[in-house]
Amino acid sequence: MIIESSSNAKVKYWKKLKEKKERDKEGLFLIEGDHLLNEALKTGLVKEIIASDEKFRVDNIPFYLVSDAILKNISNQVSGTNVIAVVKKIMEKPIKGNVCILDDIQDPGNLGAIIRSALAFDIKNIILSEKTVDLYNEKVLRASEGMLFHLNIIRTDIKDIILKLKNDNYKIYGTNVRDGISPSKITFDNKCAIIIGNEGKGMDQYLENYCDKLLNIPISQNCESLNASIAASIIFYEINRKEE
Amino acid sequence: MIIESSSNAKVKYWKKLKEKKERDKEGLFLIEGDHLLNEALKTGLVKEIIASDEKFRVDNIPFYLVSDAILKNISNQVSGTNVIAVVKKIMEKPIKGNVCILDDIQDPGNLGAIIRSALAFDIKNIILSEKTVDLYNEKVLRASEGMLFHLNIIRTDIKDIILKLKNDNYKIYGTNVRDGISPSKITFDNKCAIIIGNEGKGMDQYLENYCDKLLNIPISQNCESLNASIAASIIFYEINRKEE
Repeated sequence: MIIESSSNAKVKYWKKLKEKKERDKEGLFLIEGDHLLNEALKTGLVKEIIASDEKFRVDNIPFYLVSDAILKNISNQVSGTNVIAVVKKIMEKPIKGNVCILDDIQDPGNLGAIIRSALAFDIKNIILSEKTVDLYNEKVLRASEGMLFHLNIIRTDIKDIILKLKNDNYKIYGTNVRDGISPSKITFDNKCAIIIGNEGKGMDQYLENYCDKLLNIPISQNCESLNASIAASIIFYEINRKEE
Repeated sequence: MIIESSSNAKVKYWKKLKEKKERDKEGLFLIEGDHLLNEALKTGLVKEIIASDEKFRVDNIPFYLVSDAILKNISNQVSGTNVIAVVKKIMEKPIKGNVCILDDIQDPGNLGAIIRSALAFDIKNIILSEKTVDLYNEKVLRASEGMLFHLNIIRTDIKDIILKLKNDNYKIYGTNVRDGISPSKITFDNKCAIIIGNEGKGMDQYLENYCDKLLNIPISQNCESLNASIAASIIFYEINRKEE
């Protein structure tokens, strides 16, 4: 049976998941498109699949056939999508391996890009400060290319986690746009945590007290600063390059 | 006199500049916010300033005082802006210094970020293929943080420009997500041109015939590829690091 009415209870429920409040309450979120779905299917977190084409049906996962209009109605994208899935939020796990700590990243595209680069350069854990943009925002998911499913991502108070990491012999590397050592000139510890600051204000200054070293990527005087996701990726790249 | 009517001829004219067709016809574009305005003012390209506050008035540039509602009406941003300016398109100049060639970059955020990183890492020229997203798209301008005003940006057929660059003894470095040399292992020529490919398809394969070397940034097998603006920035960073 095809769902064709926007007053259908299921349709209403799915649309509610576009709101952060509802996602938090239900512990669920929506993903769109076959690429994100394929990444999610690797994890066992997919709860329901919604599409206007039977080809998206997957064994043992509830499947809802809907009209193209309903699919577009649920979608966050102007041009619509071919498939939507309801997915359980990823589980937080104990920290093992290198860590990136995000101090109030606001732009969803930046968070998504940092997640994608973290996986690319083997940074296995991402800590989101409490004011960092919602991980399950659709722009974050899209920019991450679904790589969030393969990382350990924890939302918590970052001061607390820094103290725990220090206790566990992690070296803490802060970032500072004015003053610091070039990441190319550093021998990174084999347990390292990198703090990336907010797009406008940079890393909160009080966090400098907890840092073993401050990093600064040398750039031209004509340019004020790098984009936060690009600065993060260059540091990840340097850590990874030196481990080669 | 404050402009308060959306049927005012000037208001209609400004709003038309949100369309590419009109920007191309007039050779003008709009920028929003004091940060972009400050960057534009360094260049002498600002033609008119539009604001609801006299504090944005600048000597010798026509200034239009408008109501908050009109300013919001012209703005591309949901939350509005404090100032808008009409700016003349930047001039194309002869190529001097390192070059980045963009093969059909589609995402405006990526083009903006590449421009910002190019300036940061002293890549002085950007070549846009004919199908690359419009430089004067408001999302490009925003992501560039106004750095486009400080670069030489040329839209042209990229095969033609590659042939000209080769003739001028530039080394051409292509990018390939599967196969190539790590940029950390290369001694870059002092006249180099880097080709960055489309987000989905990568660099067009026929361009490989024109490349002196193919670059590939080593990443984890778990991750398919890097974001195009991040890959570009890491290569720029490597070129710059080696020149230090």
